[in-house]
Amino acid sequence: MTTINDEAIALHKQYNGKIKTALNIDIKSQHDLSLIYTPGVAAVSSLLQKEPDKTNLYTSKGRTVAVISDGSAVLGLGNIGPYGAWPVMEGKCALFTKFAGLSAVPILLNTQDPDEIIKIILSMAPSFGGINLEDIKAPGCFYIEEMLRSKLDIPVIHDDQWGAATVTLAGLINAAKVVNKNLSSLKVIINGAGAAAQATAQLLLFYGIKDITILDSQGVISSNSADSYKAKLAMLTNPRKLFGLLEEVIVDADIVIGLSKGEVITKDMVKSMANNAIIFALANPTPEIMPDIAKEAGAVIVATGRSDFDNQINNSLVFPGIFKGLLQSGKKQADNEIFVKAAEALANMIAEPTIHRIIPTVFEDTAGVVAEAVST
Amino acid sequence: MTTINDEAIALHKQYNGKIKTALNIDIKSQHDLSLIYTPGVAAVSSLLQKEPDKTNLYTSKGRTVAVISDGSAVLGLGNIGPYGAWPVMEGKCALFTKFAGLSAVPILLNTQDPDEIIKIILSMAPSFGGINLEDIKAPGCFYIEEMLRSKLDIPVIHDDQWGAATVTLAGLINAAKVVNKNLSSLKVIINGAGAAAQATAQLLLFYGIKDITILDSQGVISSNSADSYKAKLAMLTNPRKLFGLLEEVIVDADIVIGLSKGEVITKDMVKSMANNAIIFALANPTPEIMPDIAKEAGAVIVATGRSDFDNQINNSLVFPGIFKGLLQSGKKQADNEIFVKAAEALANMIAEPTIHRIIPTVFEDTAGVVAEAVST
Repeated sequence: MTTINDEAIALHKQYNGKIKTALNIDIKSQHDLSLIYTPGVAAVSSLLQKEPDKTNLYTSKGRTVAVISDGSAVLGLGNIGPYGAWPVMEGKCALFTKFAGLSAVPILLNTQDPDEIIKIILSMAPSFGGINLEDIKAPGCFYIEEMLRSKLDIPVIHDDQWGAATVTLAGLINAAKVVNKNLSSLKVIINGAGAAAQATAQLLLFYGIKDITILDSQGVISSNSADSYKAKLAMLTNPRKLFGLLEEVIVDADIVIGLSKGEVITKDMVKSMANNAIIFALANPTPEIMPDIAKEAGAVIVATGRSDFDNQINNSLVFPGIFKGLLQSGKKQADNEIFVKAAEALANMIAEPTIHRIIPTVFEDTAGVVAEAVST
Repeated sequence: MTTINDEAIALHKQYNGKIKTALNIDIKSQHDLSLIYTPGVAAVSSLLQKEPDKTNLYTSKGRTVAVISDGSAVLGLGNIGPYGAWPVMEGKCALFTKFAGLSAVPILLNTQDPDEIIKIILSMAPSFGGINLEDIKAPGCFYIEEMLRSKLDIPVIHDDQWGAATVTLAGLINAAKVVNKNLSSLKVIINGAGAAAQATAQLLLFYGIKDITILDSQGVISSNSADSYKAKLAMLTNPRKLFGLLEEVIVDADIVIGLSKGEVITKDMVKSMANNAIIFALANPTPEIMPDIAKEAGAVIVATGRSDFDNQINNSLVFPGIFKGLLQSGKKQADNEIFVKAAEALANMIAEPTIHRIIPTVFEDTAGVVAEAVST
């Protein structure tokens, strides 16, 4: 990683930021100025004062996404605050620009109080067409997203949750095809109970997968958990009433999805899984188990979050297209049905999935199939 | 105005917004992705977590200005709210991009409570290199600007105040030259006591002009005013202890600066002024008096805010350069000294001012003289 790290630092310094504002319209004369600014702009202002619903037609609002973070759960780095989070949010904005042609604005907050975050975002919501919450720690992120969705008429998505859930589902659909198993009847273990893990569990349940067991660092989550989100999810999952640690509950599992931290899955654990085991080791940058070790232990399909192995499961495949589809179709909020549509569209991009290729790369969706699936 | 209005509305609809996000860096391969996003970006994040002061070096933060409004005092349209204000703020962002090469983000708030506005802006301040407050009504705007300046280490400028004050001073410097009078000894009337008028009075005082009298719609402002900002300014101005309405105090004045509303200056008022009268009728879109009428009544130099007459006094001449100069030099806040430097730089762009040309157009500062003056 040293080389990539050094190269990334040098590149960021050289370019002094990954995005910039550009003009969408010529400004070459006093006459141009009189149209885009005073006095002509006043006519547009008066129109929008009377008909605020038309703001998306006359301004860039409807094609602009705010990427908002409090820096409380950034990548695998944890609570590094707004300045540490800056280059990640700007990177996300660059991906919105590159892969969806949207405008995007990094908004870094220096409060981590969920109620304050909600209030701030509600206050500046008239500035944006959609809100991509990012890297906000659980369980605050669930509450923030719920409240904003109930109060705003623009899409609000915490991408750590739904981007991760959608791309994971896409990968699983094809992984199940490759091993010729029926996805909905498989035994699934989700190791990790943070934002991405909880959303993934919910989406897999919605998709019809019934046997899901979720573990946090203490073992299988319990319906007695003090964390109400975990408690609720515990009641919806774990039909075989398992309890204990990963090494105990992983026995006979068909699929393990790691959304926790590096190197927590051992060779012996993989050996104890069912035949044709599928492992999504998504912790970044160090996966729960390295692909070569997992394969030696009998896993047939291994996916990670990394670009240097087969089967990269990365949110970037999802969020540009989801927002593009929502914004261009005028849908108010995403829901499980939309995430499933996006996952199926992604999975279907691979005509004949193999153990080495269950998911496309982010450069392959040039036709905008995710956006198209979401908008119809 | 009908033609310009119709043309402006059609143009805004055609382009669907005046700005967009563009990439500042190539994204063409998985390797590019691994540098600008995960995993490489994590190294930049870790660096900025430890050294947040370096955020401007590695991200676009330091060259990004937020243009923030609550829509409470937009152009001459008044309190039209955040959606009505949208095209104006986006126009301002386009001018930042065009004339200063900065990135700019329209932020529209749906609260008009000064304390809430302060809190919101403080919370999202890590997102920006500078904050251009815009079209926020007096006296709230004074309080908001004061509080933000005292708490933030990035430049905060309410452009309705200081942009207007700076460009007015620039015009006056050359107007005084044309009529061969000593600016600091002239009798100045400011008709209007809102945001722009109060800042203009303060800047002219700082520049050494001693005889300034300010009127609101009730007449000369009084040190007994219930508005503490007006009361304070009344104590600093009006050395001849004038009182009454404009028609009374305008007698013998050398300069009248209108920052109020259309058609409040009559021919008779102009006739009662001193010889070589200078009139800045800056209300938009209808000036306090039309230039031809003012000239018939004896005024020698007339300036307006409009692009279709001589001598357009427009903030656009100032704000891009001021922010560019502040951001590139790392100065924390603007002050009167900086505004005077900018005004003098603008005035000096006209080698030989005439009654028809006391100020350059916004297209003439291609060398960035305002930014240069501010940054040195």
